[in-house]
Amino acid sequence: MSNEQQTLTGFDATDPDATTVLPGMPQAASPAALPNPKADIAALDELERHLFAHRYAKTGIMCYGDTIDPKAATNDRGEALAIFQEEDQALLCSPETGALLKRLTASQALLSPVQAAQVRILNRDREALVDVPPEVQSDFTRLTTQAMDVWHKAKLAGDWASFEPYLDRIVKQLRLIATYRNPHASPYDVWLDEYEHDTDQAFYNRFFDEIRNVVVPLLDDVLHSKRHEQRSPFTGRFDVSRQWALAHDLLRLEGIDERKVFLTATEHPFSEALTSNYAIIAGHPIEDDLLSGVYTILHEGGHALYEMGVNEAFNYTSLKGGTSMGMHEAQSRFFENYVGRCQAFTPRLNETMARHFVGQLGRATPNQLYMAVNRVVPQPIRTEADELTYPLHVLVRYEIEQLLMSGEATAADVPRLWKERYRAYLGINVSNDASGALQDVHWSSGALGYFPTYALGSAFAAQLKAAMVREGMDFDGVCLSGNLMPIHDWLRERIWRHGRSCDSTELILDACGEPFSPTYYTNYLTEKFSALYGL
Amino acid sequence: MSNEQQTLTGFDATDPDATTVLPGMPQAASPAALPNPKADIAALDELERHLFAHRYAKTGIMCYGDTIDPKAATNDRGEALAIFQEEDQALLCSPETGALLKRLTASQALLSPVQAAQVRILNRDREALVDVPPEVQSDFTRLTTQAMDVWHKAKLAGDWASFEPYLDRIVKQLRLIATYRNPHASPYDVWLDEYEHDTDQAFYNRFFDEIRNVVVPLLDDVLHSKRHEQRSPFTGRFDVSRQWALAHDLLRLEGIDERKVFLTATEHPFSEALTSNYAIIAGHPIEDDLLSGVYTILHEGGHALYEMGVNEAFNYTSLKGGTSMGMHEAQSRFFENYVGRCQAFTPRLNETMARHFVGQLGRATPNQLYMAVNRVVPQPIRTEADELTYPLHVLVRYEIEQLLMSGEATAADVPRLWKERYRAYLGINVSNDASGALQDVHWSSGALGYFPTYALGSAFAAQLKAAMVREGMDFDGVCLSGNLMPIHDWLRERIWRHGRSCDSTELILDACGEPFSPTYYTNYLTEKFSALYGL
Repeated sequence: MSNEQQTLTGFDATDPDATTVLPGMPQAASPAALPNPKADIAALDELERHLFAHRYAKTGIMCYGDTIDPKAATNDRGEALAIFQEEDQALLCSPETGALLKRLTASQALLSPVQAAQVRILNRDREALVDVPPEVQSDFTRLTTQAMDVWHKAKLAGDWASFEPYLDRIVKQLRLIATYRNPHASPYDVWLDEYEHDTDQAFYNRFFDEIRNVVVPLLDDVLHSKRHEQRSPFTGRFDVSRQWALAHDLLRLEGIDERKVFLTATEHPFSEALTSNYAIIAGHPIEDDLLSGVYTILHEGGHALYEMGVNEAFNYTSLKGGTSMGMHEAQSRFFENYVGRCQAFTPRLNETMARHFVGQLGRATPNQLYMAVNRVVPQPIRTEADELTYPLHVLVRYEIEQLLMSGEATAADVPRLWKERYRAYLGINVSNDASGALQDVHWSSGALGYFPTYALGSAFAAQLKAAMVREGMDFDGVCLSGNLMPIHDWLRERIWRHGRSCDSTELILDACGEPFSPTYYTNYLTEKFSALYGL
Repeated sequence: MSNEQQTLTGFDATDPDATTVLPGMPQAASPAALPNPKADIAALDELERHLFAHRYAKTGIMCYGDTIDPKAATNDRGEALAIFQEEDQALLCSPETGALLKRLTASQALLSPVQAAQVRILNRDREALVDVPPEVQSDFTRLTTQAMDVWHKAKLAGDWASFEPYLDRIVKQLRLIATYRNPHASPYDVWLDEYEHDTDQAFYNRFFDEIRNVVVPLLDDVLHSKRHEQRSPFTGRFDVSRQWALAHDLLRLEGIDERKVFLTATEHPFSEALTSNYAIIAGHPIEDDLLSGVYTILHEGGHALYEMGVNEAFNYTSLKGGTSMGMHEAQSRFFENYVGRCQAFTPRLNETMARHFVGQLGRATPNQLYMAVNRVVPQPIRTEADELTYPLHVLVRYEIEQLLMSGEATAADVPRLWKERYRAYLGINVSNDASGALQDVHWSSGALGYFPTYALGSAFAAQLKAAMVREGMDFDGVCLSGNLMPIHDWLRERIWRHGRSCDSTELILDACGEPFSPTYYTNYLTEKFSALYGL
């Protein structure tokens, strides 16, 4: 057996006393050994390759679970995911990996910037797991696999009671895991940081204060304005199979390379990617709500563009993918709203839609589209919301998550809290849980702390757009042309290609020349909706 | 950290000198330690859980590769699969696993029959890998992932030349791997044994001699008979989306639980299962060949029934799944032919088809269906073949595989050899490679040695049917009723539930009360086609 084979796997099948070093697992360094950075870098790459394979499998398994898996497969899927969770935790959290990362951190001068970023991100990923007992983590995977299935049925039946115990268990486990991770922080702060680094309740309380102070009065003015509502040709029934054909055209209009995309159907739309060459976009066209499906595709397409725009050299490393959900939602909201609901984009969007529904939309005008998709309507469904009421939907969820995670509320309180807050912020009555607290998948997948990033991402996107314009991009001209490549190029250069190697704080600072400020977002909403409603 | 946690993962994150025992990997036993069968059985279960998770991921990744993966994802898919291949090889082939299996084999008296079977199968699976350098094995995975993509394009373009170098490389690697596995056997014998244990060229030469001696003269008589060919109402164009709806009904007619099935589309139909709760059936309905799609579904449904009928307690063990491709093809050919092309089944099948194509099939009769699906037609496509010419298609492939694996022929010779043998055995001229050597996916996936099992499986199935009838089952009555549960129950009891725990030799002996004999197959063909053609 050659030396090369020994290095690759460390095993000699002929030696019964050999201790196997598994593929991916760094070797324990002999205490007397001289530092060997070259070997350490090779070990880093090996570790990364195996984390990649698991990530590839896990991401696929989770996506197929939501879209194509047979109904009877839930337990088996949960078991497979839980086992991969254990394997990753073992790879990341072993003493050998800890020692390797320590050595690499100490020899940073010898690392390329990319390698240094890998070490930093691996350390962070390890920190999130190393103090959590593996069975707690993998049992959580089993729990959420079940819970997502239960949620799906509960939503279809409008049956909160069946989901309630799962939410309570999920909150309990999230608090437990957070306490293992960081016994000194409040559990909700730990989870907020998971989805956007360096955020916490203090940050979001300030953020949502600023939002609320602008949006609530502005909404009030809008609702009291005397604007005449136009008839919308975009209402009515639109054949779902033709909506799927339209979806493909929308992806193309967005500038997405379809050779890299699997487009499929699901209850709760999502976008994920296994690598920069493999995005999964799952949509949910609704027969009597054409615009819902259209804006879902534009939104999920934004996520896919981010993933596909990451430096492909990162594919088999921990730098693969978007840096945070905040930045991810910035991309999706950018294409859904800052492009998708922009007046200058409406001619191309209108024309694309009309191609598939000549009879129904043959006479629709860009202006009708603009008015229809920016009509301010307080209603119960977050993903259907106009840009103005949208942050209020997010705020309701943030506040309820705070109460659940602090223990001040339990799952049984949620429907009542939901109704109260929707009445308070949006002035509407939520009459059933399917249009209420059961509408979103996030809690069932264990993702408390994620919702605030939808509003934060919208605010990031506003600041990114302002920077593009300030630097001289003819934003409206680009949207009018339907060739979004200048926008792609700007975002790819400043945001996408960096993957996880830079946090949002750094990305925004470098991209915009200044730190994050929510004022771009509140200004955008004020200008846009004041103009629309003649305020 | 509790003792329990130590046992589970063997790691203590607080001890920098601890050597990690990875999930799945058995611990090295201290030489002085007393035998601990309980710990060994727990280690066995752990090893099996991790092999299960990898198998679940790999099977899914390979199936999605053929059906839903974006075109650009091939390299990434191949890389992920290759890495899992390495991980499995390391788990199975480590000295620790070898020692564990040795200890368990020695303490068989303490094992349940299922555990003993697990140990036996794990030993065998290990033997197939332990002497093969891991990079050779994982590079082969990369090669076949590429080759399947190349084959798919080559078939669509009818371009043998583009596939040729891949086939040569595949044959070269198969010979290499076989030589590592068993330096004393001819490489083709090693691979024949892979797909059906205890077979080799001596076995198949005898088998195909018997087949040829009956089928060739019988075919000659049939082709010279004076039977008047009826008009078939099953020709013409049949809307593909309605064929998909029909496919669901066919699965139900076959008695398949659709809650456990993901039905999807592909170039080359297949059926795989991740567990007994998750079967993937990939079909390929052709607009102007309704019967092709119908019999594909029946065939693939047979595979799925086998997988779903395995004892569900085996799902997270190496006993999961069919015992060999020979027995697998026996199940698929059973439902495709012994049920599907049986006269007594035609009323129910005809009625099911007509439900979806009322205009075109409203007047079709069961007898017309029987004549159409049993019409003997020498033509180039194996999967379209009637039962009589079918084994000759397989024989051509067997003979060419023999020549490739012995080195007597290379990929460049294949189109010529293919034409020559199709002319010799079926009397037809194969005019292009898309209808010739490019028609099947098997070689591109590295599966030389698999083709003969299609004929062997057909022969197994004939013997199984004969046993059912001999024991008193009213086979025709069951088919006529459309309720196939008596057949399911018989096969589940004798074949399916055992999974990999018994080889085909044992299964046939126990199920039929006698060893395998091809005579049931040749008798079946003689009787059926003599009657059909008035010989």
